[in-house]
Amino acid sequence: MSVRRLKLVLAYNGQGFEGWQSQKHGRTIQDEMERAFSRIVGARVAVMGAGRTDAGVHALGQCAHADVPGQKLTPGRWLEALNAFLPSTIRILRARWVSAKFHARFSAKGKTYRYRIVNSPVMSPLDLDRAWHVRTPLDRTLLVQATGAFLGTHDFAAFAANRGRKESSTTRTVVTARVRGSSEQVELVFSGDGFLYKMVRLIAGTVVGCALGKDTVEEILRRLADPQRPGSRTVAPAGGLYLMRVRY
Amino acid sequence: MSVRRLKLVLAYNGQGFEGWQSQKHGRTIQDEMERAFSRIVGARVAVMGAGRTDAGVHALGQCAHADVPGQKLTPGRWLEALNAFLPSTIRILRARWVSAKFHARFSAKGKTYRYRIVNSPVMSPLDLDRAWHVRTPLDRTLLVQATGAFLGTHDFAAFAANRGRKESSTTRTVVTARVRGSSEQVELVFSGDGFLYKMVRLIAGTVVGCALGKDTVEEILRRLADPQRPGSRTVAPAGGLYLMRVRY
Repeated sequence: MSVRRLKLVLAYNGQGFEGWQSQKHGRTIQDEMERAFSRIVGARVAVMGAGRTDAGVHALGQCAHADVPGQKLTPGRWLEALNAFLPSTIRILRARWVSAKFHARFSAKGKTYRYRIVNSPVMSPLDLDRAWHVRTPLDRTLLVQATGAFLGTHDFAAFAANRGRKESSTTRTVVTARVRGSSEQVELVFSGDGFLYKMVRLIAGTVVGCALGKDTVEEILRRLADPQRPGSRTVAPAGGLYLMRVRY
Repeated sequence: MSVRRLKLVLAYNGQGFEGWQSQKHGRTIQDEMERAFSRIVGARVAVMGAGRTDAGVHALGQCAHADVPGQKLTPGRWLEALNAFLPSTIRILRARWVSAKFHARFSAKGKTYRYRIVNSPVMSPLDLDRAWHVRTPLDRTLLVQATGAFLGTHDFAAFAANRGRKESSTTRTVVTARVRGSSEQVELVFSGDGFLYKMVRLIAGTVVGCALGKDTVEEILRRLADPQRPGSRTVAPAGGLYLMRVRY
């Protein structure tokens, strides 16, 4: 039986999932994906994602691959079949055949994340679990300056959480770091060749700290130059983070 | 003890509520509001809304009034106290004192509703319960023509559900009826002096029927001229409907 590799682009609402990665307890997106595949194929199918997302983190452009019986369905039919078996909080947006050399994680050249902040005294109930509610007014100039400070190639160890295993390198290149949106509906956009564990949420936490006058752009630059330097570490809430795109 | 009338503007996520109006079974927004007031005041407080919204219908600008002890708190403090006791799926956006002649329902001069449609083969999981997912492409010209047909003063009885009681009159004036947004993210906006039970959802269902070629603008006009005329009645899903504003 010939096997073909299917590349998928998918979206999910992170709320209600214990993140991407399969684990002993709790629903994960990977589990739901593998369950949907196995119901179609009638055998276990492994699904490899471009990267893990934590519990509560959303995705509008996560990527994954899976090896499936090649003659069974066209990519368009795979998309329809998977969406029929998946919960409606996970949706396959695109599907296509790729070469066996393609690997959702190892072939990834870059990722784009968006971090949403609602900066107003009261947050709309429709933004709940979808943005970080910051009540105190943020200084826009400081917000822009602090965000821009993360541009470039740095050792981001000071802006990463320890996952219990050593990363081979903690140096990454951030090519986009900008502030979008209105004064109330703020969006931080970050693109780069890769992001360490909790890196975007730690950056968002630091950027907001600066815009509230609790931290400084100079201090960010010092911590990028000296990753061992101690400093305040605020992990912005998971619900504000969106994986927008994986670039190959 | 002097009593003052407090006017509130509030937002809620309709999902998870059995609509605005108190009822024997299920959580309602009115119940939650009255519970929050009574916890602050220490006695039962009645909350009067500008109008009922059905189960699943959202509000970004619902209005309500309540009579409360006048010396106790400023409107700003009422807002904070209510938000502290309300679930985070209901938020008070504004509060101010009004005269005892003001009545949230009877003083209302008009309302604005928005109806959201996602017109694409796959709907983002973040739009679930927040828009009507219509997979078949809608004809934009027909969409605009059908929406515009509802403008003006008409007997809207053909576009209302029977609530089990007779409305004194089923004549209403629609002053805004327009289509906004992109081809995938469609918004229908309706403003008028009042709307009958399920009227906006019946209009949205009819407008989509026209844009799919199942109904015609001529047929809408005939049913507006002759409310007894039989016709297809599609009630668009509750999750796509947003009460945006009440005008006084």
